[in-house]
Amino acid sequence: MTTALDAPPLDPILDDIVRTHRPQREAGSVPTHIPSLAAVPYNRFGIAVATASGDVFTSGDAHIPFSIQSISKVFTLAMALQRGGTSSVWSRVLREPSGTAFNSLVQLEVEHGIPRNPFINAGALVVTDHLMEETPDAASALLRFLAREAGGPGPFIDEAAAANELSNSSRNLALAHFLKDFRNLRQPAEFVVENYVRQCSIMMTCVELARAGLFLAREGHGTSGTVLSRNEAKRIGSIMLTCGMYDAAGEFAFRVGLPGKSGVGGGILVIVPGHCAICVWSPRLDAKGNSLAGSEALADLSDRTGWSVF
Amino acid sequence: MTTALDAPPLDPILDDIVRTHRPQREAGSVPTHIPSLAAVPYNRFGIAVATASGDVFTSGDAHIPFSIQSISKVFTLAMALQRGGTSSVWSRVLREPSGTAFNSLVQLEVEHGIPRNPFINAGALVVTDHLMEETPDAASALLRFLAREAGGPGPFIDEAAAANELSNSSRNLALAHFLKDFRNLRQPAEFVVENYVRQCSIMMTCVELARAGLFLAREGHGTSGTVLSRNEAKRIGSIMLTCGMYDAAGEFAFRVGLPGKSGVGGGILVIVPGHCAICVWSPRLDAKGNSLAGSEALADLSDRTGWSVF
Amino acid sequence: MTTALDAPPLDPILDDIVRTHRPQREAGSVPTHIPSLAAVPYNRFGIAVATASGDVFTSGDAHIPFSIQSISKVFTLAMALQRGGTSSVWSRVLREPSGTAFNSLVQLEVEHGIPRNPFINAGALVVTDHLMEETPDAASALLRFLAREAGGPGPFIDEAAAANELSNSSRNLALAHFLKDFRNLRQPAEFVVENYVRQCSIMMTCVELARAGLFLAREGHGTSGTVLSRNEAKRIGSIMLTCGMYDAAGEFAFRVGLPGKSGVGGGILVIVPGHCAICVWSPRLDAKGNSLAGSEALADLSDRTGWSVF
Amino acid sequence: MTTALDAPPLDPILDDIVRTHRPQREAGSVPTHIPSLAAVPYNRFGIAVATASGDVFTSGDAHIPFSIQSISKVFTLAMALQRGGTSSVWSRVLREPSGTAFNSLVQLEVEHGIPRNPFINAGALVVTDHLMEETPDAASALLRFLAREAGGPGPFIDEAAAANELSNSSRNLALAHFLKDFRNLRQPAEFVVENYVRQCSIMMTCVELARAGLFLAREGHGTSGTVLSRNEAKRIGSIMLTCGMYDAAGEFAFRVGLPGKSGVGGGILVIVPGHCAICVWSPRLDAKGNSLAGSEALADLSDRTGWSVF
Repeated sequence: MTTALDAPPLDPILDDIVRTHRPQREAGSVPTHIPSLAAVPYNRFGIAVATASGDVFTSGDAHIPFSIQSISKVFTLAMALQRGGTSSVWSRVLREPSGTAFNSLVQLEVEHGIPRNPFINAGALVVTDHLMEETPDAASALLRFLAREAGGPGPFIDEAAAANELSNSSRNLALAHFLKDFRNLRQPAEFVVENYVRQCSIMMTCVELARAGLFLAREGHGTSGTVLSRNEAKRIGSIMLTCGMYDAAGEFAFRVGLPGKSGVGGGILVIVPGHCAICVWSPRLDAKGNSLAGSEALADLSDRTGWSVF
Repeated sequence: MTTALDAPPLDPILDDIVRTHRPQREAGSVPTHIPSLAAVPYNRFGIAVATASGDVFTSGDAHIPFSIQSISKVFTLAMALQRGGTSSVWSRVLREPSGTAFNSLVQLEVEHGIPRNPFINAGALVVTDHLMEETPDAASALLRFLAREAGGPGPFIDEAAAANELSNSSRNLALAHFLKDFRNLRQPAEFVVENYVRQCSIMMTCVELARAGLFLAREGHGTSGTVLSRNEAKRIGSIMLTCGMYDAAGEFAFRVGLPGKSGVGGGILVIVPGHCAICVWSPRLDAKGNSLAGSEALADLSDRTGWSVF
Repeated sequence: MTTALDAPPLDPILDDIVRTHRPQREAGSVPTHIPSLAAVPYNRFGIAVATASGDVFTSGDAHIPFSIQSISKVFTLAMALQRGGTSSVWSRVLREPSGTAFNSLVQLEVEHGIPRNPFINAGALVVTDHLMEETPDAASALLRFLAREAGGPGPFIDEAAAANELSNSSRNLALAHFLKDFRNLRQPAEFVVENYVRQCSIMMTCVELARAGLFLAREGHGTSGTVLSRNEAKRIGSIMLTCGMYDAAGEFAFRVGLPGKSGVGGGILVIVPGHCAICVWSPRLDAKGNSLAGSEALADLSDRTGWSVF
Repeated sequence: MTTALDAPPLDPILDDIVRTHRPQREAGSVPTHIPSLAAVPYNRFGIAVATASGDVFTSGDAHIPFSIQSISKVFTLAMALQRGGTSSVWSRVLREPSGTAFNSLVQLEVEHGIPRNPFINAGALVVTDHLMEETPDAASALLRFLAREAGGPGPFIDEAAAANELSNSSRNLALAHFLKDFRNLRQPAEFVVENYVRQCSIMMTCVELARAGLFLAREGHGTSGTVLSRNEAKRIGSIMLTCGMYDAAGEFAFRVGLPGKSGVGGGILVIVPGHCAICVWSPRLDAKGNSLAGSEALADLSDRTGWSVF
């Protein structure tokens, strides 16, 4: 892997990536159920690379905060694994790709209430419920975690967007009540969904997200110290690779070859194990819900740098 | 990745792996639709590691031929990608994990005849059909490919087992006719299934399979020269990681962290990119159809060596 | 049909039906999500026949109130059809058998939020939502409708049971939020479920239910006057026959040959078009959720009387 | 039911039905997998009513033979029930509406190889297989049955159409092999499909089909004597009502209110229990695969005559 790691200087590559992939005209879509996301200009594009040695390279709109949405699921999973009884979260959620849409109820019914993985919505609701047992305000705890790893007070919850999204959360409420019916939710469904939506509404920049994800590239060692054991960090990477890009995980592994997690805010967090964490952001989405320009840019970057786990 | 690569000497580790994981008593299951597999003694256990530098390390029953079954799918996919018009095979099969059993017809109906990936049976039938267009006897061509990469005339087709399995191939015939109904099969369904079953009935040893798979660990360079481009080799690795272990791909990535492909003959081929190809074999299967002792052994080996792509 | 209608005297037949089918020992099951139903003695068994000419024949526990549960869906559908804009309810719910469990979310997802018929839970929630637009307290309106047709103040809502069931309504809440996500629910999900549960918790006797259902056997003419047009009454009958017995509608049509609607309280309302309405009640259920002894009794009664629409 | 039975004189009604419903311009579709059906002029329209008292009323193209297709399933089921061990066919096929397309493999997989009812393709293949155990040439036996009941040598197999359809039978071959995989097919899959296709390719006129179906309206008494017991005849009626119109059975019951069975050749056989058998024919189909003009005509006829089982 990554034999070409140290060869190319990153700055000109990132600048060229931005030149090549920043959208020149409107394309792709925005999620209809989250009104605030539709307001973001289509031509936003940023990228940041935080290396294991502590450097950060950036280009484009890497310092503009955006809604992290489902990228939050990587970090809530890490927090759940930090808790002592880590075994219990794995008794409530599987680690398999889903083969269906991220918010499907079908698989949940077939699997009798055990979500396929922690990155589909049902699985993330279970992880949130799990965190809330110890920390009722799990969203604020996540915010503290992210600020610590990002190295500053930048991350914040867009409460207006959260309130707005919450009023459009029928699908997530359905999932939560369905989980409760299968006795796989312990807190009240409404509370879990509210907490989950607030997590998704956290605003961060590419730089902050790349720094916050660095522990996954450094065998568990984050910017603030040890976050997880080496094994647990690697395992989050494996789940990102097999389940991190909604129903396009296989395609992303095929084209980019790196563990990644996307959010419908247009961000994608990618890990180059042993070397760096990358965050790219561009708000318009492809048919599977992943950043259109962001996915293209990462495939390009992988080709140019040789970064791939395969 | 794999920082511990050169540290531990392999021979004592493999011997200890065999001591620890060779089944002491009957456990697991055998596939009911392939009678010949049930006759293999339950306590067979072998392992071989073929390194990028040309060494082969072995322990246990690494020189006893067994039925490669679905491991053949890795090599027929490689052969399909070798053909000039490689684009066409990807127009007929996707690259996404399936989320259902390997021989399910449900997903195929939902996806209108485009198999989710080349490693579920429907996808492998399409790949075989694709090969047969140029090489009607694709099974014999595969045998030649395998003998060349394995470095000797060892691999052979167990024709009696193939004939026997063919008479129990109703599910595969159903899949093939279903593909034909969706116009995603060009040869007669019966011919494709016969060819596919003969491919699955190829007998090889752990040593031969590890050597034959080495091109996937060496950016496409096999024992006999260049098999595939670097990119194509890496992409097969990505499909192995996301789709190679039936409906336990996520779990295998989580525990072992390496691209792998299993067969119901009890073999598992695993790639450590840049370093080696591993083949482990033990005939009894877990509930998902993967070698019970083989999976355990690979998790153990990954822990001991630090081999993981994450 | 029913050539033997007037032949056999009913009283001795009903008495013999009770003798034959009243459970002698515990068998079948009770619904786990409605605690109050489990408390009903297993050997309750009652039957009532209300004829088109105004007679009522009874035997066994025909005067003991029980929870009508899903039988209420027949009457809320009738009320929805009574409203002027009847077309609109049929734009929100289909009229096809479901082929899946009564509370499945799968079909709803496949059909994009349009329930297969008004007798599965999702469909009944839509009908309730439809009624609530004009009559927010639809459950009380239903109670008045039932009392009028039953000919007395007997029917009442078991509010304690309703409250209890409401605290176990996660599945119905999931269905309601899911419908809302598909924009096929207009009132707040919680209100619709609460109203629905109160409708299901109405207590009636066999005699009252048989009288209340008589309009379906008399081309729309109820005990209090015209309830529906001839066409609409017949159409409710058709939906009862194809969809009235959960996933055993085909079997019930095969064995009994009459339109029926069951509830998990153990009641079954059956229509003999042109002749009578029958209500049988026995609380223990078969695997499909229909009264075990009640279904047997109706098959027996159909054989003895020749009553069948076929 | 059918209080208006004897009121209206049939001849003028049928003539008016033909005038009203004979297609004036191309509409609807033809099945793409059976080329011969596409050649039938779109404006064909015929109707025949065979009464219990022996009269036959006709109008339009009631004497032109057409391909009976799936209407054959009613008669093969009757033949299977005529055999001594009738119980066995019901151990191999259920009696429930399917809720999915007539040729779906999904339900079959979920139900582990037991078709939902004898009128979906999988169920009809099982019935054919069942007949073939005693009568290998079941199609010819069916032809004799039909000629006897129709009262003449009119029915014949369109062997050219059968051969043509057989070369487009991938879906049915998939179903047959799938059934075999579940051990619910005893003859070779290819033979069963061939026999099934020949049954479907029988050519009959509206008059012949109405006469052949008369035993279902006369408690089992056909034109040639007793075909089935009263109970069995009624039960076929119940399956026609719940499962006879593909995935539009509920809608047909709702609008027409009579047991019916359609074929993609454009024919629909309908039973008015105790009174008559009706066959309507018009070749263009609606989205569910039922005759477009035929369905409309039957709804109209039901409204005019009051014929309905509800």
